[in-house]
Amino acid sequence: MTSSATPQPPVARSYGPMASHPAPEYSHHTVIGRIPIRDVTPCVENGRLAAKGTEYESFPVQATVFREGHDQFGAEAVLVDPTGAQVQTVPMVNIKPGLNRYEAWLTPMYPGPWHFFVRSYSDPYATWRHNAEIKIAGNTDIHLVFLEIQELFERALESIPENSPEYGIISDALGIARIDRMPPNVRFRAITSPEVEEALAAYPVRDLVTESQQYPVNVDRIRALSGAWYEIFPRSYGAHRDANDQWISGTLRDAAVALDRIAAMGFDVVYLTPIHPIGKTARKGKNGTLTPEPTDPGSPYAIGSAAGGHDAINPDLGTFADFDAFVARAHELNMEVALDFALQCSPDHPWLKEHPEWFTTRADGTIAYAENPPKKYQDIYPLNFDNDPEGIYQEIYRILELWVSHGVTIFRVDNPHTKPVSFWERLLAEFRKNHPEILFLAEAFTAPPMLQGLGAAGFHQSYCYFAWRNEKKEIEDYLWELARVTDHIVRPTFWPTTHDILTPYMQRGGLHAYAIRAVLAATGSASYGIYSGFELVENVPRPGFEEAIDNEKFEYKPRDWQAAESTGLPHLLGMLNAIRRRHTALNRLRELRINPTNDPNILCFTKFSRPEESPDGKADFVIVAINLDPFAAHGAEITLDLSPFGVQAGWAGEPLFEVTDELSGATYQWNEKPYVYLDPAWQFAHIMSVKVL
Amino acid sequence: MTSSATPQPPVARSYGPMASHPAPEYSHHTVIGRIPIRDVTPCVENGRLAAKGTEYESFPVQATVFREGHDQFGAEAVLVDPTGAQVQTVPMVNIKPGLNRYEAWLTPMYPGPWHFFVRSYSDPYATWRHNAEIKIAGNTDIHLVFLEIQELFERALESIPENSPEYGIISDALGIARIDRMPPNVRFRAITSPEVEEALAAYPVRDLVTESQQYPVNVDRIRALSGAWYEIFPRSYGAHRDANDQWISGTLRDAAVALDRIAAMGFDVVYLTPIHPIGKTARKGKNGTLTPEPTDPGSPYAIGSAAGGHDAINPDLGTFADFDAFVARAHELNMEVALDFALQCSPDHPWLKEHPEWFTTRADGTIAYAENPPKKYQDIYPLNFDNDPEGIYQEIYRILELWVSHGVTIFRVDNPHTKPVSFWERLLAEFRKNHPEILFLAEAFTAPPMLQGLGAAGFHQSYCYFAWRNEKKEIEDYLWELARVTDHIVRPTFWPTTHDILTPYMQRGGLHAYAIRAVLAATGSASYGIYSGFELVENVPRPGFEEAIDNEKFEYKPRDWQAAESTGLPHLLGMLNAIRRRHTALNRLRELRINPTNDPNILCFTKFSRPEESPDGKADFVIVAINLDPFAAHGAEITLDLSPFGVQAGWAGEPLFEVTDELSGATYQWNEKPYVYLDPAWQFAHIMSVKVL
Repeated sequence: MTSSATPQPPVARSYGPMASHPAPEYSHHTVIGRIPIRDVTPCVENGRLAAKGTEYESFPVQATVFREGHDQFGAEAVLVDPTGAQVQTVPMVNIKPGLNRYEAWLTPMYPGPWHFFVRSYSDPYATWRHNAEIKIAGNTDIHLVFLEIQELFERALESIPENSPEYGIISDALGIARIDRMPPNVRFRAITSPEVEEALAAYPVRDLVTESQQYPVNVDRIRALSGAWYEIFPRSYGAHRDANDQWISGTLRDAAVALDRIAAMGFDVVYLTPIHPIGKTARKGKNGTLTPEPTDPGSPYAIGSAAGGHDAINPDLGTFADFDAFVARAHELNMEVALDFALQCSPDHPWLKEHPEWFTTRADGTIAYAENPPKKYQDIYPLNFDNDPEGIYQEIYRILELWVSHGVTIFRVDNPHTKPVSFWERLLAEFRKNHPEILFLAEAFTAPPMLQGLGAAGFHQSYCYFAWRNEKKEIEDYLWELARVTDHIVRPTFWPTTHDILTPYMQRGGLHAYAIRAVLAATGSASYGIYSGFELVENVPRPGFEEAIDNEKFEYKPRDWQAAESTGLPHLLGMLNAIRRRHTALNRLRELRINPTNDPNILCFTKFSRPEESPDGKADFVIVAINLDPFAAHGAEITLDLSPFGVQAGWAGEPLFEVTDELSGATYQWNEKPYVYLDPAWQFAHIMSVKVL
Repeated sequence: MTSSATPQPPVARSYGPMASHPAPEYSHHTVIGRIPIRDVTPCVENGRLAAKGTEYESFPVQATVFREGHDQFGAEAVLVDPTGAQVQTVPMVNIKPGLNRYEAWLTPMYPGPWHFFVRSYSDPYATWRHNAEIKIAGNTDIHLVFLEIQELFERALESIPENSPEYGIISDALGIARIDRMPPNVRFRAITSPEVEEALAAYPVRDLVTESQQYPVNVDRIRALSGAWYEIFPRSYGAHRDANDQWISGTLRDAAVALDRIAAMGFDVVYLTPIHPIGKTARKGKNGTLTPEPTDPGSPYAIGSAAGGHDAINPDLGTFADFDAFVARAHELNMEVALDFALQCSPDHPWLKEHPEWFTTRADGTIAYAENPPKKYQDIYPLNFDNDPEGIYQEIYRILELWVSHGVTIFRVDNPHTKPVSFWERLLAEFRKNHPEILFLAEAFTAPPMLQGLGAAGFHQSYCYFAWRNEKKEIEDYLWELARVTDHIVRPTFWPTTHDILTPYMQRGGLHAYAIRAVLAATGSASYGIYSGFELVENVPRPGFEEAIDNEKFEYKPRDWQAAESTGLPHLLGMLNAIRRRHTALNRLRELRINPTNDPNILCFTKFSRPEESPDGKADFVIVAINLDPFAAHGAEITLDLSPFGVQAGWAGEPLFEVTDELSGATYQWNEKPYVYLDPAWQFAHIMSVKVL
């Protein structure tokens, strides 16, 4: 690796016409082509499903490419846009010499159904150069060697426009190749000059050109990958007790007012838990009790009442006009609105009467509520997707389009893993076609096959296991798995807490745990989310559960936002969102390096983005170091992985980088083994922007 | 695991008519089916190429299978024979709980183009049983629980023939299910009896039945996987000096006489290095010198002279009649004849005149000999497969068929990696179709992508890196890689030496190294080979090369087979081949366990075969322990992997097995941690047949 300020990945090339000869006819009958290309990735279900891509996000293409005999060959990855045009061609690099695993990164530029393939070819110039160098050194076949390159130059000239500079360069080289009296060494150097090789790179001479099958990549808009979310129960905003000490629900109008505070912290998405009418029958009380007070508002996940179902708004919250006003205000504040989509029904949902065939009728003639024996959820009736698949599908499609027509651009899908994966595959494919801007987040807190399967089926984004990864080693492994192992099927989002999740680490670690996990979420993942109340360190669990006590699912929870300021968390979240806006690297998934440290509490990683991933064409680097221990300070020497930076460690430990902590503003000179000291009470993390010296 | 004499893998089931309901229509539009099946293996190039299968060899099918919600499901692997009939259905077992990786082993029974797929289904009986058990224990929904099973039994009965025993069993169970006065516990036990469950297994009630795409498996005859080969240069047999001290070539008739000795050692295949006319021009002398004596016979790999090319026989060796007699004698002795197929030409090959277009014409108008600068191989002219691919293909096809018509059943292909992989893919596909009995062994001593790529392209068998794996750890890793990582594309053959290979281990280790590697080859791989002269410990290298001095490639090499007897190696080889005949386990690739030992010189592994892999329907086990050090004795405690045997270690170390060393005849009682002491000078290996106590 040479020393330069930014890494030098192979970049997209555009070619003039090539003097390329495709592989002869017989290879068309074979799966393994003339210059074999095997095991192409990313590949989902044999290329029958699309891998995940995002506008302005590079993704790695790999293939095993090899050939018979000793002749030189090359490979390149080709990106095909939705119109079928081959818009990027990037030379592939052998990243596992001996195993011939070739890689190149492609960068789709806008959403849509893209494809890629791998092209391999025999490289007669490289073959000639390799052989000529040895033969000239051995003074054998000199005449023949130069005859061969003359033929190759003549062939190249047939395809180069006569008025191009390359034509002149190759013509001149051809002339020199013919001068037999010139010493072979001198002639060789002259006709293999950088200028000649650049001209040949622009108008390559290739033989046996071979192409792999095409593999699909669904490219989504950037918010599918990257964004800062803020979750609210809108009824809590403005909720209050009236003169008789009875709760009065907050409304969408109240919540709209609260958007200013959320926007001020710099969030991109405001996510509403369900806003639909809530069933009365079997309604749950505070803390999920089965004995509600008459005025308990019920869980918004028990959807449907006489006032309507999934296509209606809880009258306590307001009207469609109020919803539209909420959405309009969010948009004014540059925030998108994500709506919870919980496909289940309260006993009072209109579907139970209008479409009993959409539910399961039990052997005794009753309609089945949700059960996981011995647990019974008598407030919830699950749809049976197999009774009238087409009818259910069309109704759900209609409802989603209704909300889209009211400005919802993201659906946060509750428990998608309790519905058929094939249902989602069909729905997401149709939405990608008809409403490519609409995104779906899967809340599938279940085993990896389902979580990944829903991603493969088309969900744009997935809640993941972040909340349960708290030790350094498991965080390191998980960051890498997400960035490089499952990136073709899963886009993660990191949530330190949700209304359903309050891990022991958060329960015990106090304010510092909240701050640490906020930094980890906001920098470790391109998408992350905060559940309202996080700023108040609401870390007391309901006994026996890993969720907050007095859970907002079951009651109104107006909060003292003034008091929240004193925790410093609103300020921290605001800083994190501002830092994320300044750094493309923090808004991408795939380019990550774990930097080993010599303390088990200090985690360090580098996120970076390629020049072609930024509209400004500049690479970006962020080094994050975090003390994971909320109770004590720790110091550690970090061993930085220098591979992204295009620098090598000096022999005297001299500084390689000027780094600036985006949290504190402090600037440091770092070599490849910097030391950090991180104190939870004071400075528990660095988020370093990097200037290569 | 329960204690029993043989392992209890799931075995093939045949079903009666099923009360199965396929997944509803909408899932047909999706890639991920109703009960999702993902990442099916074995899968070569997205299922566009066939995985390797062998008659009477089980192969593992794996898939990730999961579903929405809590209901129970099942998966099975289905084997489809060349007629399209579904001939085996084996329940899949979850081998990675939490990751839902399911596995079943299928066993094709005869050669041809087979397929397999994975079927998943919702299992309403298992779901009912799971829920009923909990509900009866909690005394809830008792009436409903038994109503549900009544419906299920009624549904089952619709598909069960009325005259079958199962009809009676299920009818009785239905009757019991209806007896409300019977205590729920008693009723539950009665209707979930083994008899009822067996009846339901024979006539399963299933919903949402989902099938994966079908994946191809090319099933070859057993010799593709398993066999003991013996390599000869036929001209050496009977070669002698005449009265004038001039060499007289041995003949095919002489070689036919020598077949008795080879057959007596129990070999299955006799492999002839090329038998075609040898070029005179640029002929090489002894030890590859460029200054041959006039009577030097030349390398048989320099093919072609005025006497003919690849379709002719070197007149020194005899005629086609002699060849036919040789083949006939081999067949009488139950040996197949493998012929070397070296696709290159001496300067005197008729093709150079008749088909100069099949070669490369250089820029100076000359035809190109083989080169790898700075090395020149002026005795060898390589074909250029891209000049007239169709012409070359048809000629090669014709020549191969000619030899097939003279009884050759195996081609040992010399350097296939210097010819286009796509050429082999086409040729092998056409041979599999027209001559499925003919086998091709690839001699591709090159990097893994090509070695594996040629296997994927269709070569039946491959020389591999065995000769260069000499340390315990690297042997263990390599055995596992061949058995379980590359088994779907590569069938290995182990050769301790060849005419081209004499590794440092063999050069230095003397007779004991030869004995050790013979045992390792014959037991570590289903196919192995011995190069003539091995019995004489011809371990002196040509200086600077890892091949034998005075190499048989360049001279006659009659041998003193009487003297060979004194090495003991002919006797050892005979024993090894006899042991291999007695043990199916040694003739299969995939079922292997490495048994750790506490000495770095003592290697131990278990090979086993499933009942369905033997015509006698019995499982077979062989435990091999070898001292890899040819110079000193070593002892080691072995920790046996008990998983194949269906036994568990006792708590007092009591014997689990009676093992009999097939080499010495000695019998031992072994528990799970036997101790072995192996002395290269006396008893350097155990090949234990196993009787489970």
